[in-house]
Amino acid sequence: MSRRRKLRRIGVVAKAASREAVHTAQELTEWLRRRGLEVALDETILRAGNIGGMGQDPPLRIGEDYDLVVVLGGDGTLLSVARTLAGKVPILGVNLGNLGFLTEISRGELYPALVEVLAGRFRTETRSLLDIDLHRQCGELPGDTGGTAGLRYRVLNDAVITKSALARIIELTLRVDGHLVARFRADGLIISTPTGSTAYNLSAGGPILSPLLGVAVLTPICPHALSLRPIVVPDSGVIEVTLETPREEVYLALDGQEGTLLGQGDTVSITRSKATVKLIKVSGRTFYDNLRGKLRWGGLHNGGPGGDGEPK
Amino acid sequence: MSRRRKLRRIGVVAKAASREAVHTAQELTEWLRRRGLEVALDETILRAGNIGGMGQDPPLRIGEDYDLVVVLGGDGTLLSVARTLAGKVPILGVNLGNLGFLTEISRGELYPALVEVLAGRFRTETRSLLDIDLHRQCGELPGDTGGTAGLRYRVLNDAVITKSALARIIELTLRVDGHLVARFRADGLIISTPTGSTAYNLSAGGPILSPLLGVAVLTPICPHALSLRPIVVPDSGVIEVTLETPREEVYLALDGQEGTLLGQGDTVSITRSKATVKLIKVSGRTFYDNLRGKLRWGGLHNGGPGGDGEPK
Amino acid sequence: MSRRRKLRRIGVVAKAASREAVHTAQELTEWLRRRGLEVALDETILRAGNIGGMGQDPPLRIGEDYDLVVVLGGDGTLLSVARTLAGKVPILGVNLGNLGFLTEISRGELYPALVEVLAGRFRTETRSLLDIDLHRQCGELPGDTGGTAGLRYRVLNDAVITKSALARIIELTLRVDGHLVARFRADGLIISTPTGSTAYNLSAGGPILSPLLGVAVLTPICPHALSLRPIVVPDSGVIEVTLETPREEVYLALDGQEGTLLGQGDTVSITRSKATVKLIKVSGRTFYDNLRGKLRWGGLHNGGPGGDGEPK
Amino acid sequence: MSRRRKLRRIGVVAKAASREAVHTAQELTEWLRRRGLEVALDETILRAGNIGGMGQDPPLRIGEDYDLVVVLGGDGTLLSVARTLAGKVPILGVNLGNLGFLTEISRGELYPALVEVLAGRFRTETRSLLDIDLHRQCGELPGDTGGTAGLRYRVLNDAVITKSALARIIELTLRVDGHLVARFRADGLIISTPTGSTAYNLSAGGPILSPLLGVAVLTPICPHALSLRPIVVPDSGVIEVTLETPREEVYLALDGQEGTLLGQGDTVSITRSKATVKLIKVSGRTFYDNLRGKLRWGGLHNGGPGGDGEPK
Repeated sequence: MSRRRKLRRIGVVAKAASREAVHTAQELTEWLRRRGLEVALDETILRAGNIGGMGQDPPLRIGEDYDLVVVLGGDGTLLSVARTLAGKVPILGVNLGNLGFLTEISRGELYPALVEVLAGRFRTETRSLLDIDLHRQCGELPGDTGGTAGLRYRVLNDAVITKSALARIIELTLRVDGHLVARFRADGLIISTPTGSTAYNLSAGGPILSPLLGVAVLTPICPHALSLRPIVVPDSGVIEVTLETPREEVYLALDGQEGTLLGQGDTVSITRSKATVKLIKVSGRTFYDNLRGKLRWGGLHNGGPGGDGEPK
Repeated sequence: MSRRRKLRRIGVVAKAASREAVHTAQELTEWLRRRGLEVALDETILRAGNIGGMGQDPPLRIGEDYDLVVVLGGDGTLLSVARTLAGKVPILGVNLGNLGFLTEISRGELYPALVEVLAGRFRTETRSLLDIDLHRQCGELPGDTGGTAGLRYRVLNDAVITKSALARIIELTLRVDGHLVARFRADGLIISTPTGSTAYNLSAGGPILSPLLGVAVLTPICPHALSLRPIVVPDSGVIEVTLETPREEVYLALDGQEGTLLGQGDTVSITRSKATVKLIKVSGRTFYDNLRGKLRWGGLHNGGPGGDGEPK
Repeated sequence: MSRRRKLRRIGVVAKAASREAVHTAQELTEWLRRRGLEVALDETILRAGNIGGMGQDPPLRIGEDYDLVVVLGGDGTLLSVARTLAGKVPILGVNLGNLGFLTEISRGELYPALVEVLAGRFRTETRSLLDIDLHRQCGELPGDTGGTAGLRYRVLNDAVITKSALARIIELTLRVDGHLVARFRADGLIISTPTGSTAYNLSAGGPILSPLLGVAVLTPICPHALSLRPIVVPDSGVIEVTLETPREEVYLALDGQEGTLLGQGDTVSITRSKATVKLIKVSGRTFYDNLRGKLRWGGLHNGGPGGDGEPK
Repeated sequence: MSRRRKLRRIGVVAKAASREAVHTAQELTEWLRRRGLEVALDETILRAGNIGGMGQDPPLRIGEDYDLVVVLGGDGTLLSVARTLAGKVPILGVNLGNLGFLTEISRGELYPALVEVLAGRFRTETRSLLDIDLHRQCGELPGDTGGTAGLRYRVLNDAVITKSALARIIELTLRVDGHLVARFRADGLIISTPTGSTAYNLSAGGPILSPLLGVAVLTPICPHALSLRPIVVPDSGVIEVTLETPREEVYLALDGQEGTLLGQGDTVSITRSKATVKLIKVSGRTFYDNLRGKLRWGGLHNGGPGGDGEPK
């Protein structure tokens, strides 16, 4: 907790779909202005939080010229902000519902936390991002004139390649640093950061990753071959996934919020991003404290011998 | 292996997308006619085998007035035939690729097997089907005028309720015999027969079910709550699944071959069908022999102490 | 809920290690005697509840001449009683700690529940038991003179064949109705009733079975081959497991409470028992209600998009 | 593949229980001596390979004054050597059975590989080891006079804390860098290196770790709470596991080959070892090639639609 330069310009982002978030944003803006701080309330991102059809995020107006961005909403809202901002501005996540993994400050802790932050009493935790490059090799998709298209995305949680509900099982080829790992059939593949390891990856059977590790986990979704298991690899190399199957509806989804269609022969290439996300930590809560709380590890499942059904 | 009435009228169904299947069908037709049997070669179903977009199956021309239907293709082709025919006609499945769970006669065994079958030396194995009723409660889907629509489907393997690739996680309510089992978030839910237990259910982490059990297995796909596990229930009752989530693209897929959109409030109701499928068994292969072969249970995964890496 | 003959002789069994159980037993005895009922307080079983070294249970004094047995303790205590009594006497399980799957009456519900039971207003649920026969083929174990020894056990939850902590991986052969299922390497194998499916089976990755199904589930513990999965089979046949590995310490554990050593060539044979257990149900709680409560299915694991971290 | 100093003194270790290993060792010794090299044939370790009761390894006679150690046997034999030698001497693993993850040179490749190695044409791969310190806090074990005993072990694959077959479920507290991760009930806990991730860890549901990562994976064995999942943590910190349960038989097993009893209050402390193991790589086989071969990832599990049962 070193001394820091004074915070002057504060960005406030709230989840637009939430009345409470918008109300809290207004109240917070006043609170900050009363303390002589310059505040910008960004509503653009808010609508992006309300993502039914996974449209493209509009460009975030709040840029790197801010000293701090306060996010009011949940982990989903913070993901949007982080992916778009992806920069050097530290983010303070405030959760208006239940605590999240990324937004661990509750509504009631907001002002006490801000007092600490404005006084410079906080630490930041740096989370890695992945750059997702889509190499489109052919004119397979409708309206696609072929050639190689270069599209770049960025994720804080995960990139997911997954077939549509009615498509038949798809075949993917996975390479790490140019070496073939497997060509396999599955519903899809999750490429997750440590931050994303507690999200979709966990539902699909992947392991929990300590948040500061320089790794990614590759977790197949409902693989055909039962021996195909999650693999943890360094994020310093290049992970490449190629769609081998023609004529099926397959998508690349980014942080579960944006998406694009994939065609046969398309290769998704994943590398560690130079950009990182800086999360402000005020509480003494550790990652493991969050895990225990969210996954209810105090809980026991049965009433068998030695189970919790026994009086002591 | 009791005495049976003489087989006279034989239907032959082949997977149209497969040259080999069509060629074999022609050869088989001649072989059967030379033996004085009446043969109908059904090509209608063939095109249905080639199901990119999961269109509706055309009506099968071969009906219950046949004494035997020979299916040339794979398990997928047999699924189509069984679902459509769903009756009292015994089916002989011939696999032109690797052996399947349903089509366990290989190309080379076709004629020896038929000699046995025509001589009445075979047994039949009865597999259960599930009736799938879709109760549409509201006018949520585009072009839907509301009210209750009653759609009935039939499956030999499974009914799968699953979100589209870009939809957010969905919420389902599961009831068995009117009792609430759980309201939960997941990518979807598989309701599988014993026959289907070795298909999608297995990829999603469900158990293998002995083929003659009167049960269904309910297997969540990538559930949010890690404690939500596959549940085996009697198929004599009523399983009901209601989609609680609005405005997300969710499908009901039947045997992985047909599908329909679901809207909020729609309830899928699953009961044991009165119809069954009769599979002809000529070989002495048991279900467990098939499992061992297909799942390669001879195999060992590691080279640790006691592993297969050690010389004996 | 038919009319029943009057209950006269009540057995009371309490977990001896628990002061509260013993105290409640005394109080209950007085309460029952005041109502003119004949009561026997059995302390023999109590000590058996306190099973460090998995000694043999002492014979239960309370026999089939009782009209009702009240068990005060937890699921473990009820398992002991059920296994030993294994008869026609209905059992009322009272849990003094958290609710169990078998003991779903809480301390506070004891007397209201008994009033209902004594008035004949209850239903009974019949749970299947498995008979476990151990065929010892050879003189492999120390002090064993060889020949075939026939030992019979009975379980309400499960029979578990498992290697000791320091033994190397063991090899087992599994047969169902005389058919080879698999010869495989693992830490062990669980053979569980529907009642036991929510106990050890669940921890080892097995499915939940509806309690009234006539099935058993065979769940390998940490199998070498990753494709070896839980299998649900009819309990009407014969399940046989043979230990193939010599010179390793391997045990057969029964309901996690009794155990015996196994030697190479020993075969454990499992069939459905003629005896059953009758559990008294007073509450309207269903099996699924218990599942939801014990497995906390309301819970959600993550704070990702759509997760519970978002305000609504 | 840099230039190296000339190899002069070669140690040869063979699995004593294997006739083939001993025979090959003799042949190899002659082959090496004919080339003017000094050879020591170590038979001490051999007996250690034959570990029924997990006795203590005898001290290895071949020490760090050797330039190369050739191990003839399997991964288990190499584990013994690596754990004992744990030093700067590069190891060439030769598998006399099926290929292992550590011993990827086959019998037929032995001499061609040695020609390459003696000519200096090889690379070495450095694998991390874990130091396992046992802090015994009390006089709980029989014959134990109390106080703190410091025992240090070293593993290349894994340290496993696990209850004996007949013990009831045990309770463990897991801490990482002094932070509480969870206090939980399970059959045990595996702490595995990347090298060990494909061994016991994989059978227990843990992920595969790329071999050069600086991480350890903590995988619970049959945990009571279904939400308790494998966790990947940096190996640069301190992992501590404390046994909370009294009076149950619990063991600490090291690489599945050595073991010691644990008592209540005992803490096992795991840190990255300063020593490493250097494996000689001659073949172009990657880690992923080994995975594909050993886990048979070419394989497909079912014959459903799109399965391998279909002709193309």
